[in-house]
Amino acid sequence: MDYAQRALEEHKKLKGKISVELKDQQLEKEKLAIYYTPGVGAVSSHVAEHPEEARDYTWLGNNVAVISDGSAVLGLGNIGPYGSLPVMEGKSLLFKHFADIDAVPIILDVHSADEIVQAVTAIAPSFGGINLEDIAAPICFEVEERLKAALPIPVFHDDQHGTAIVSLAGLINACKITNRDLNNCKVVVSGVGAAGVAIMKLLKEYAPTIQIVAIDSKGIVGSSRDDLNSVKQKLITDNIIVSNQSGALSDAMVDADIFLGVSQPKVVTQEMIKTMKPDSIIFAMANPVPEILPDEAKAAGAAIVATGRSDFPNQVNNALAFPGIFRGALDNNVRDITEQHKLAAANAIAQLVENPTPDEIIPSVMDERLVPAISQEIK
Amino acid sequence: MDYAQRALEEHKKLKGKISVELKDQQLEKEKLAIYYTPGVGAVSSHVAEHPEEARDYTWLGNNVAVISDGSAVLGLGNIGPYGSLPVMEGKSLLFKHFADIDAVPIILDVHSADEIVQAVTAIAPSFGGINLEDIAAPICFEVEERLKAALPIPVFHDDQHGTAIVSLAGLINACKITNRDLNNCKVVVSGVGAAGVAIMKLLKEYAPTIQIVAIDSKGIVGSSRDDLNSVKQKLITDNIIVSNQSGALSDAMVDADIFLGVSQPKVVTQEMIKTMKPDSIIFAMANPVPEILPDEAKAAGAAIVATGRSDFPNQVNNALAFPGIFRGALDNNVRDITEQHKLAAANAIAQLVENPTPDEIIPSVMDERLVPAISQEIK
Repeated sequence: MDYAQRALEEHKKLKGKISVELKDQQLEKEKLAIYYTPGVGAVSSHVAEHPEEARDYTWLGNNVAVISDGSAVLGLGNIGPYGSLPVMEGKSLLFKHFADIDAVPIILDVHSADEIVQAVTAIAPSFGGINLEDIAAPICFEVEERLKAALPIPVFHDDQHGTAIVSLAGLINACKITNRDLNNCKVVVSGVGAAGVAIMKLLKEYAPTIQIVAIDSKGIVGSSRDDLNSVKQKLITDNIIVSNQSGALSDAMVDADIFLGVSQPKVVTQEMIKTMKPDSIIFAMANPVPEILPDEAKAAGAAIVATGRSDFPNQVNNALAFPGIFRGALDNNVRDITEQHKLAAANAIAQLVENPTPDEIIPSVMDERLVPAISQEIK
Repeated sequence: MDYAQRALEEHKKLKGKISVELKDQQLEKEKLAIYYTPGVGAVSSHVAEHPEEARDYTWLGNNVAVISDGSAVLGLGNIGPYGSLPVMEGKSLLFKHFADIDAVPIILDVHSADEIVQAVTAIAPSFGGINLEDIAAPICFEVEERLKAALPIPVFHDDQHGTAIVSLAGLINACKITNRDLNNCKVVVSGVGAAGVAIMKLLKEYAPTIQIVAIDSKGIVGSSRDDLNSVKQKLITDNIIVSNQSGALSDAMVDADIFLGVSQPKVVTQEMIKTMKPDSIIFAMANPVPEILPDEAKAAGAAIVATGRSDFPNQVNNALAFPGIFRGALDNNVRDITEQHKLAAANAIAQLVENPTPDEIIPSVMDERLVPAISQEIK
């Protein structure tokens, strides 16, 4: 199927994928007097006096904003707010489909951290949660951190944490199959953007003695480099990554147990995989073209390969995590999604695969047990 | 019926009045690949290159933000964002019910004109139109003016223009019944807030030689006063109102043809009405208690009385105007709602009453001809 052509046709036919609908569609005149004036006045007075009850009398208890400035949309890059809207509407569609959450796409015409924080803070009372999406690194880190500190509702940058949670879930099962303890593993992470940084932090949280080597476009990220931005420097000072190495990706891969790529197509060669430990684990998540194709990786000795694509086994798909995360946060009135929540979500996802095999370390996104299994951990 | 109690019960039962729903609810896995990745990438690329086509591929062509900072909610005053949310959700409900428009309540946690303009400008690409609601005067005037200048989509402060349009529609029919030409009338407008100012401007636009006397809480607004804010001063310098008078409401009412109140309960007495021209027209629109009750006004000589209430004849209700205004603006891709649009809307509403009588100068809000009649004028 030509996805591109069909997508253009279907979007134009429907004119967008979501609509606002009324919970009560039997609106005779008397009902209007209850839902609007004069009746609504009593509700407004009550909520003004008890703002913590707003979620009981309005849609706040079940809604989320999907917010982007269009600066890092899919693999398309900085295509601006209008270009990002079809993706944000699509994300809202996933929220509804998987978790029955009312999600509203909010696309921003501002791009600095200050302006994004200011705009989102201004509109935050309108929503029960904030899903940040496709905001470029490194601004995305500062934006999320400041919003989490400022707002009394959950703020979650899915490109960071969704990917990290599902990657960890897959790794848990991959380690089970290959008889590994992540605490004894050497892991190479290629890509130090939103997803890469979050993956490294969550792995370190899960397995404190894990050895992580980070790779950016210049090679190994280490203390001998003088071109590191503050985010990369912090990975060193926080002891998330090994800091005393230098060289290229090929140097880092020697004796590594695991490769996690959230970087560029085809940067991994079969030769590199041959230098890794036996039965290596490869998560080649660049989209749409992975760091190495599964067949090539396996031919070079990889035991397990995951990608970001739905047409290969083991798809690392954020949609496995975020619906349940927000469902739980909304239902349990959780104001802050913590590292412990993310670890619990990863474990819950991993456990849904009863008998992991090299071709099934991650459940299907259509698995209806996902949202209840994850949401009960977000409490 | 006890509206207050029933409203509290119904709102709590439904947990809000609106939800986000999917236009296509048959979402097998292949559809997800069209509406989200990988298919949506082609749509995003196309829209990024042709932002003017965003409305054809997303919900932008049919959505509106209902925006308030909660500073002037109904008759409740400055009750803050959370208190305003039930009203904004109710407004969204009216948008859907009457005009099939997808309206999203956005409540703001900022209150200065600068901050409101900044926040709304930042999120504006998310919406096909902006309905400002329950923002206090005089800030509302500056906010609307600056947003209209800044944004390529229609911006409409309903408290101003909705009330003005429906008032003018009612006056057109009231003048027909009492054989008046508005151009020869003396009109007293009590209340120089959002609605009052917009009413005066629209009346002057409709009938350039009309005589308008404005009343605020201190009495007649005139050039001898030294306590006028810039909005009131501008009514004088723009020749909207008669500026050479002073005194109290009772002074202004002498020989007036028409009284329009958007002010305070019970400020008009029967004695005042007796000093007006015979067959006077009284629009006593303070809510929920009007400036004078219809029976009292009629007993004192008024020929026609309108109020803001649904339990008296001739309800001046914004919901007669805004659904059709936005329906037309969205359908006809109108970027700016002008004075000419407002006059055309008022005429269209007035004409729906084929045979105006003192108890029927304004159509019912349930009249299904309203939206098509108005929307075809907004082009």
